[in-house]
Amino acid sequence: METITVNASVKYNVIIGGGLLESCGGYIKNVTNAEKIAVITDDNVSGIYLERVESSLSEAGFEVHSFVFPHGELSKCSDTLNKIYGFLALNHFTRTDCIAALGGGVTGDMAGYASATYLRGMDFVQLPTSLLAQVDSSVGGKTAIDISEGKNLVGAFKQPKLVLCDTDTLRTLPREFLIDGMGEVVKYAMIKSEDLFDILMDHDIDSIGEVMEDIIFRCVSIKRDVVEADEFDKGERMLLNFGHTLGHSIEQYYNYTGISHGMAVAKGMEMITSLAESKDMCRSGLTDHLQSCMDKYGLDFSPVPDASYLGNACLNDKKRAGNSISVIICSDVGVSSPVKMSVEKFEEFLKY
Amino acid sequence: METITVNASVKYNVIIGGGLLESCGGYIKNVTNAEKIAVITDDNVSGIYLERVESSLSEAGFEVHSFVFPHGELSKCSDTLNKIYGFLALNHFTRTDCIAALGGGVTGDMAGYASATYLRGMDFVQLPTSLLAQVDSSVGGKTAIDISEGKNLVGAFKQPKLVLCDTDTLRTLPREFLIDGMGEVVKYAMIKSEDLFDILMDHDIDSIGEVMEDIIFRCVSIKRDVVEADEFDKGERMLLNFGHTLGHSIEQYYNYTGISHGMAVAKGMEMITSLAESKDMCRSGLTDHLQSCMDKYGLDFSPVPDASYLGNACLNDKKRAGNSISVIICSDVGVSSPVKMSVEKFEEFLKY
Repeated sequence: METITVNASVKYNVIIGGGLLESCGGYIKNVTNAEKIAVITDDNVSGIYLERVESSLSEAGFEVHSFVFPHGELSKCSDTLNKIYGFLALNHFTRTDCIAALGGGVTGDMAGYASATYLRGMDFVQLPTSLLAQVDSSVGGKTAIDISEGKNLVGAFKQPKLVLCDTDTLRTLPREFLIDGMGEVVKYAMIKSEDLFDILMDHDIDSIGEVMEDIIFRCVSIKRDVVEADEFDKGERMLLNFGHTLGHSIEQYYNYTGISHGMAVAKGMEMITSLAESKDMCRSGLTDHLQSCMDKYGLDFSPVPDASYLGNACLNDKKRAGNSISVIICSDVGVSSPVKMSVEKFEEFLKY
Repeated sequence: METITVNASVKYNVIIGGGLLESCGGYIKNVTNAEKIAVITDDNVSGIYLERVESSLSEAGFEVHSFVFPHGELSKCSDTLNKIYGFLALNHFTRTDCIAALGGGVTGDMAGYASATYLRGMDFVQLPTSLLAQVDSSVGGKTAIDISEGKNLVGAFKQPKLVLCDTDTLRTLPREFLIDGMGEVVKYAMIKSEDLFDILMDHDIDSIGEVMEDIIFRCVSIKRDVVEADEFDKGERMLLNFGHTLGHSIEQYYNYTGISHGMAVAKGMEMITSLAESKDMCRSGLTDHLQSCMDKYGLDFSPVPDASYLGNACLNDKKRAGNSISVIICSDVGVSSPVKMSVEKFEEFLKY
């Protein structure tokens, strides 16, 4: 069992280990004065974990109400959000009560955003059950929903009171979800840690499970450092978006259904690194090196929309400020920096 | 011209005086680095003020895009909000751009909430054109929308960068809107200022215009003090809710259309004071004294829903925490305090 403390505007622990869902009630009792807990989860996760989570919460003395929505990115929208608000109102939730997000990134984003906005803010805890959510989205306080114009365009900064990463949940994770999460793991290695990259190169999708607790610990530690340095995403935190500006545009092109987030980010990392290499902005051979790592984890998605589509989609990217956009470039494994360019220059940059 | 500085998590000025809308561009240029401004306003206000605001903003060098929605509380909902998000995306607004709320409380609440959540937060300025918005809702950073389960149940704390209270706008304000605002003015007097109450008693709805700049200055000063003491509504700020718990329930009963906010709050203040008096929680005769003041300003609304309806509606009130609710009681003019009671006791309290 590992514990990482995040010192953001709210100070909270990320606990990593096995069996945490079964004993979540006690952990959550330590961080909130809530009388009621709303467990928000999707219809894939609910069948596997909801009962044990509800039991543990009830045993800890909470009144528990659960809200189950259809799984998938298409649910991360205003319609589902309004249903959650209605559910909270109907069950008389108050400001001092708590929302628990049980599931992957979609659940965490949406439940977190609901907790940030219902009654102008309630307590919130994360119970991530996917690799993607455990290494990335459950930590750092970014919450959001999608709108038809783009992914995560509406959201809030809302730090959780606690994150419980139960590594047992990864054992039964379908291979595609493991691949999805590995996209973000490779990202952490690329932006900040050659050591992590070396571990990834020494394993593959079949053997990585042996060192998963260490992998999660390393990724969350990197994220903790970045979030503590820049909670509200004005500088350093931009590094976490390596591969994401293009990745989000690729996801949007596929209407958030045809491709996973991790796969889209992987493709985004590969594209931006290839572009950087062609312009001598990174060491020679880095794209191949990155691709050889991604190949080990099934991150080998190929067809992408054309440059003009991507360029236009990127105009709505949140990282854009005024007429410029910050693109994250890795000059080598573990070495990353934002490169600010005008929108025109970025569009030019994309035409490779 | 008067300036009040609010030292909240964001430090900003509230400027009160004539002719401010015509020169708003220069004032706004001083507080934001935005390249674009989205003016959000309703179809009542747009016809009177939008052109001069757009001109001033353009002259100051901003690219201006305006969004006009149908006036009225029924517009303060998720549907309008989603249209605003779409409008911002379509016009490629970025995090460093700015939203200006031009109008009354509905506009300020909704535009403020959009600015708090689009891209997880943009700059925001308030150009309030109603008495209600100038004395109350434009200052302090509470933003919200209504959902079918209740008023203001979804929202965020988002301080503006600037508030320009152009008192010229009050000259042409229809009488019903003046009455609406006076409900909140009487509230400030009741909770914090016998001096203000005396001024109100020395005037009436026809003569109050003569001292309006002073009235606004006094109200905003009280609000500033309360917000600085308790920005996130954990204690002192609750005093501002005098009359509001019942007031919101009355508004909800009338589906937010049959009664103005100020009128509903006035009725809420009268009801809660009458209840308090019947239980010796305030000085004898206070209800009549309050009513005599409200009579001078047309705050004489009578029919109310029954106690069981109000009790149930109040259960969803944001001020509720767990199983208790904080009711604001004035023991005398200018003397207020929160009284915490269980939901059961509150329901009992309502059965007068």
